[in-house]
Amino acid sequence: MALAYDGAIQQLIDSFARLPGIGPKGAQRIAFYLLGADAQEVQDLADAITTAKAKVRFCEICGNVCETSPCPICEDPRRDRAVICVVEEPKDVMSIERTREYRGLYHVLGGAINPMANIGPSDLRIPNLLKRLKSGEVTEVIMALDPNIEGEATTTYLSRLLGPLEIKLTRLASGLPVGSDLEYADEITLGRALTGRSEV
Amino acid sequence: MALAYDGAIQQLIDSFARLPGIGPKGAQRIAFYLLGADAQEVQDLADAITTAKAKVRFCEICGNVCETSPCPICEDPRRDRAVICVVEEPKDVMSIERTREYRGLYHVLGGAINPMANIGPSDLRIPNLLKRLKSGEVTEVIMALDPNIEGEATTTYLSRLLGPLEIKLTRLASGLPVGSDLEYADEITLGRALTGRSEV
Repeated sequence: MALAYDGAIQQLIDSFARLPGIGPKGAQRIAFYLLGADAQEVQDLADAITTAKAKVRFCEICGNVCETSPCPICEDPRRDRAVICVVEEPKDVMSIERTREYRGLYHVLGGAINPMANIGPSDLRIPNLLKRLKSGEVTEVIMALDPNIEGEATTTYLSRLLGPLEIKLTRLASGLPVGSDLEYADEITLGRALTGRSEV
Repeated sequence: MALAYDGAIQQLIDSFARLPGIGPKGAQRIAFYLLGADAQEVQDLADAITTAKAKVRFCEICGNVCETSPCPICEDPRRDRAVICVVEEPKDVMSIERTREYRGLYHVLGGAINPMANIGPSDLRIPNLLKRLKSGEVTEVIMALDPNIEGEATTTYLSRLLGPLEIKLTRLASGLPVGSDLEYADEITLGRALTGRSEV
């Protein structure tokens, strides 16, 4: 009996099923969508994949993904060069940009310290960060790592490392997410919100 | 401020976000996965997409997706040519094949009657089905359409159409899904399970 689709279809399903967040049923759904879709749309998807892979590199200064290195943010003369926001991944840069609240530069570490996954400080772009800070231009470093165990460990590690440099070290506020319900906040978050309370 | 990624990355994210079942966050996750993945793996995905689109066609007899028409199932001499199982979509063929319980042929309608979506009997592969039945070789037609309003309407329509042909018409059993809890079964399913009860 035919327990797999004809070669090319099964290969298409398998290729999609390997991507993060797509299961076998989702991959099958996408494959049949593509088989029924406009030929141009399908070609555009294949082209977008090969083009992005060929064009994209990492910025030699901040480590963000970009098509030109240094990236547009590092090159932008309107940005405040005295502040560097340290994040884990390139996608975090975009999250902070979307707030429209930040005008400084970034530094992408490429992850966080995670002994379980065998990621230590030497696997992160920490030397590049130190080099940037030694230029003397930077007056504040904002730690914007994920508020989980790995992010906290990395923030602690970096704050000890950068402590002697006489640069202001700050971190993102912990507290209640806007639009959430106090009732559903976990104890740690609510505790942090209390500790970090501000005057009205 | 940079509220979108550099051209090629944003285009990659947008291309994936257009696929069914992938939202903007999922598309971003896939894009960054691909940017960090092995070049060969990424090329394989792009190739799988273009190859499948170029190679795949629909079987002229049963309407299933395949690389050769007639498809391997219609061509298989070991299959029982006296039974045709009518399904909505090519993926339903695979679902039934996976049961390893069926040795007959298939007929893919290409959907179900759905007045809300403006799909009538003339949009389905019904004339091809009638032509296959008129050969006289077929003794049973199994209706295996989705157990929802559209599937039921299509089953009713087909059973009226095929009634005069003196072919045995059957349909998949309705009842409790295996491994489920009686407590959580809806009234209609439980009612069908009662009506269709069998001797132990």
